[in-house]
Amino acid sequence: MLQGILNYAHELLKECVHPNETVIDATCGNGNDTVFLSKLVGEHGLVLGFDIQEQAINNTKQKLKENNCDNVKLILDSHANADTYLSTDTEQSIAGAIFNLGYLPKSDKSIITQGHTTMTAINKILQRLKENGIIVLVIYHGHPGGKEEKDIILDKVSKLDQKKYTVLKHEFLNQANTPPFLVAIQKR
Amino acid sequence: MLQGILNYAHELLKECVHPNETVIDATCGNGNDTVFLSKLVGEHGLVLGFDIQEQAINNTKQKLKENNCDNVKLILDSHANADTYLSTDTEQSIAGAIFNLGYLPKSDKSIITQGHTTMTAINKILQRLKENGIIVLVIYHGHPGGKEEKDIILDKVSKLDQKKYTVLKHEFLNQANTPPFLVAIQKR
Repeated sequence: MLQGILNYAHELLKECVHPNETVIDATCGNGNDTVFLSKLVGEHGLVLGFDIQEQAINNTKQKLKENNCDNVKLILDSHANADTYLSTDTEQSIAGAIFNLGYLPKSDKSIITQGHTTMTAINKILQRLKENGIIVLVIYHGHPGGKEEKDIILDKVSKLDQKKYTVLKHEFLNQANTPPFLVAIQKR
Repeated sequence: MLQGILNYAHELLKECVHPNETVIDATCGNGNDTVFLSKLVGEHGLVLGFDIQEQAINNTKQKLKENNCDNVKLILDSHANADTYLSTDTEQSIAGAIFNLGYLPKSDKSIITQGHTTMTAINKILQRLKENGIIVLVIYHGHPGGKEEKDIILDKVSKLDQKKYTVLKHEFLNQANTPPFLVAIQKR
């Protein structure tokens, strides 16, 4: 069967990220992607995990503990400030990043990611992305505010210079209830 | 690097089609996909290759000869008549099919695939598609008539019953010159 959006997101990251590299979980949420990234880069790699909600950071911390992941730095701040937490050593390039856009599942649906801050984060990460590195966005957009964020992101990423980046959109067409879709930006 | 549309089309077919099965090249064109499908199903498999242009059938015949492919039945007729050429034995199910929509490269650009006949062909093949079988459409739409065909197909495939079929759209967003994109329909 054609795989679902989350599996495809992970497959793209697996193709681009290798052990010992630095990656970003831009929206820790309940920590599933954080654990995935942690295992991908291995014990000598580094995951920077961002979330603006304490509940998300705590949930992620718990999940990391359960999975014996000790290569993750959790950061209670917006991904829009990602640059602040990167080493000033410009050699520290980013191999991959994932964003799950929308709200924290089973939590306050009014706290959502926003198009402009999401784009700020994306642009900051692009500055440090390695060649062939990838940013994967899983875009949930059925909630209030979701369409606005989706429109901003699609507009901006469609304008990225094709000489520098490849931008893919991968979506299922015949599903009810505005399912999430995927956008991937790979540095050439 | 994220792979191009044609490579991704072949990858999807590789995942779904196995040796000894029956597959369809709905638009032989210059025969590249026909050769690919021929090798995929192997000497005991069968490829039905359609094209309405004699030049395409001849080009494909030549390419098949060069590649020692002798499991292909070339048919100078519209893919909309595909059912006519399938065995009445309903056990002969189709494992996969590919359509390259648009005009024959290096040929008369006014002879193009058309949305309604393309959909007729798709619907006939869907009737015989095996479980997990896949129809892959590579949709060129930058030529006169291309937008009309694209719109008809996207409208129709978006309405396919999600309990029976999964419909994927896979496209690059930041490329100039209306690049082709991919639609895949997999039977559940």
